[in-house]
Amino acid sequence: MDALVFDGTLRFTHDHPEPPLIVGEALIRPHLAGICNTDLEITHGYMGFRGVLGHEFVGTVVACADQAWVGRRVVGEINAACLTCPTCLRGDHTHCPNRTTLGIDRRDGAMAQLVSLPIACLHLVPDSVPDEAAVFVEPLAAAVEILEQSHLRPTERVAVVGDGKLGAMIVQVLRLPGCEVTLVGRHPERWALFERMGVRCRTADALAGEQFDLVVDCTGQPAGLATARSLVRPRGRLILKSTFHAASELNLTRIVVDEVQLIGSRCGPFAPALRLLERGLVETAPLISARYTLPEALAAFEAAQGALKVLVRISDGQEQHG
Amino acid sequence: MDALVFDGTLRFTHDHPEPPLIVGEALIRPHLAGICNTDLEITHGYMGFRGVLGHEFVGTVVACADQAWVGRRVVGEINAACLTCPTCLRGDHTHCPNRTTLGIDRRDGAMAQLVSLPIACLHLVPDSVPDEAAVFVEPLAAAVEILEQSHLRPTERVAVVGDGKLGAMIVQVLRLPGCEVTLVGRHPERWALFERMGVRCRTADALAGEQFDLVVDCTGQPAGLATARSLVRPRGRLILKSTFHAASELNLTRIVVDEVQLIGSRCGPFAPALRLLERGLVETAPLISARYTLPEALAAFEAAQGALKVLVRISDGQEQHG
Repeated sequence: MDALVFDGTLRFTHDHPEPPLIVGEALIRPHLAGICNTDLEITHGYMGFRGVLGHEFVGTVVACADQAWVGRRVVGEINAACLTCPTCLRGDHTHCPNRTTLGIDRRDGAMAQLVSLPIACLHLVPDSVPDEAAVFVEPLAAAVEILEQSHLRPTERVAVVGDGKLGAMIVQVLRLPGCEVTLVGRHPERWALFERMGVRCRTADALAGEQFDLVVDCTGQPAGLATARSLVRPRGRLILKSTFHAASELNLTRIVVDEVQLIGSRCGPFAPALRLLERGLVETAPLISARYTLPEALAAFEAAQGALKVLVRISDGQEQHG
Repeated sequence: MDALVFDGTLRFTHDHPEPPLIVGEALIRPHLAGICNTDLEITHGYMGFRGVLGHEFVGTVVACADQAWVGRRVVGEINAACLTCPTCLRGDHTHCPNRTTLGIDRRDGAMAQLVSLPIACLHLVPDSVPDEAAVFVEPLAAAVEILEQSHLRPTERVAVVGDGKLGAMIVQVLRLPGCEVTLVGRHPERWALFERMGVRCRTADALAGEQFDLVVDCTGQPAGLATARSLVRPRGRLILKSTFHAASELNLTRIVVDEVQLIGSRCGPFAPALRLLERGLVETAPLISARYTLPEALAAFEAAQGALKVLVRISDGQEQHG
């Protein structure tokens, strides 16, 4: 089958083996996949991953032991957990020590004509949510995870550092409880959308001396992390959303003296993310920078560098669902 | 007056100037002071402090505009806040940007015949709490701060890394909600006391593979911090209680992937600490390693290195209160 594979080199192939139908899993024909910064990092060696890329997708189930799934349009959580270990039994499936992760860790991803995922990972997509919105569920869930982890009071002041793909999801979620939200970034050309949503947009330099109750770093850069840390008030929270800080350093003595809380934050819950899309509370269309087809995926990866969301069309799903 | 002064060199002097009585403050004659690791660090240059050392004390008020305080036995919170800035008005007095800190930052400490503190910092000591227990209120409050910052469920598994002065306070507090508590240290000769309290005591090597919901680092050492981090389960909390980690490094990518929460923790509330002493829920007597007088304070500092609590007798308070 057609697939975008990373095996040390990123390449499009016509003859990747099709995945078999495994007990407890479903075979899905992806319609669309999104390119995330994690995908870009994987092509630079992150996680030592080898296989089909892609963990943001929407598709149609084409084979499953439970026939009720066949023909249904789905999105899929990316962590395939064992569901039997103490971590899973505690409900922390996304931290299962035996997990594989779609397109990231020992499990082929969705940039292929077929992808396999455990049924437990699948979520039906409501008919009112088009493919080009549903493909944002995975990063949107990662933004929702912040609300899942930390009590965000409507009276709190929030800063989101990084006006890229993930920051665009996070500011939209963190504005929902009524907080004052500031997006801190270096791309003023992207800000009109967020300002229309009531989000204040600034460069870091324009915030000298301001402090916030909760600050999210989603830059993945040491300089971005340093900016984020400087914006946290004593006893405030600093949410770490990026896995690529290289050799970032934090002054731990100042973390103690200021009693700052650092909260690592990764994958989030799909069900509330789907509800936000269904309710029209999060915008995705303006975040699409470019569209490519699977055979053009190498060019898509080039275009994704420094862009907002680049989508890869894998099959024409809209005609076949519903 | 007699005082233990650090001015680049630690020295006992007979002729440090007496503090004046300032509006809003009280003059206190300390009975006893405790030596903390922060004191030891200050003699190595921490905070660039110059002046009288000592921030753990119990004493008697000898002068105050409000006569109701005079003659009363007190302990004192160490952060002298402005009470008017936004941080203070939010209730975060210990984080006031205008604060001075007793014996640590631009405010003479308690290892002297007189010390001055704002009335707002003072707490009456119940008659049932002897001086040698009351002198532990400050580090005990720092332990209580962990419960103030984080919801500790009675069903959680806790590890406290560091069986020194502060660890001895922290395990005693964290056992109170009924948690399973493990003290991780390198001084088995100290463990009998804690084992009698139901605290499990182990070396780090004996815990290979174990994970805990909440881990406290109070070692102040990079190796101790690394041990503490390794014991935190995914989605667990790591409480940082030490300000002296030198160039400690934490792998921030692993913090994100494991969604660990790091919580800096410093000074805590005195009122609950006094209640714990009054109720006999925390033991202090077995933690006293040695007793010195103020003129012997240099020897006391020598003895405090690597010891549990070393006390410095400044005046004979027990005869004069009550």
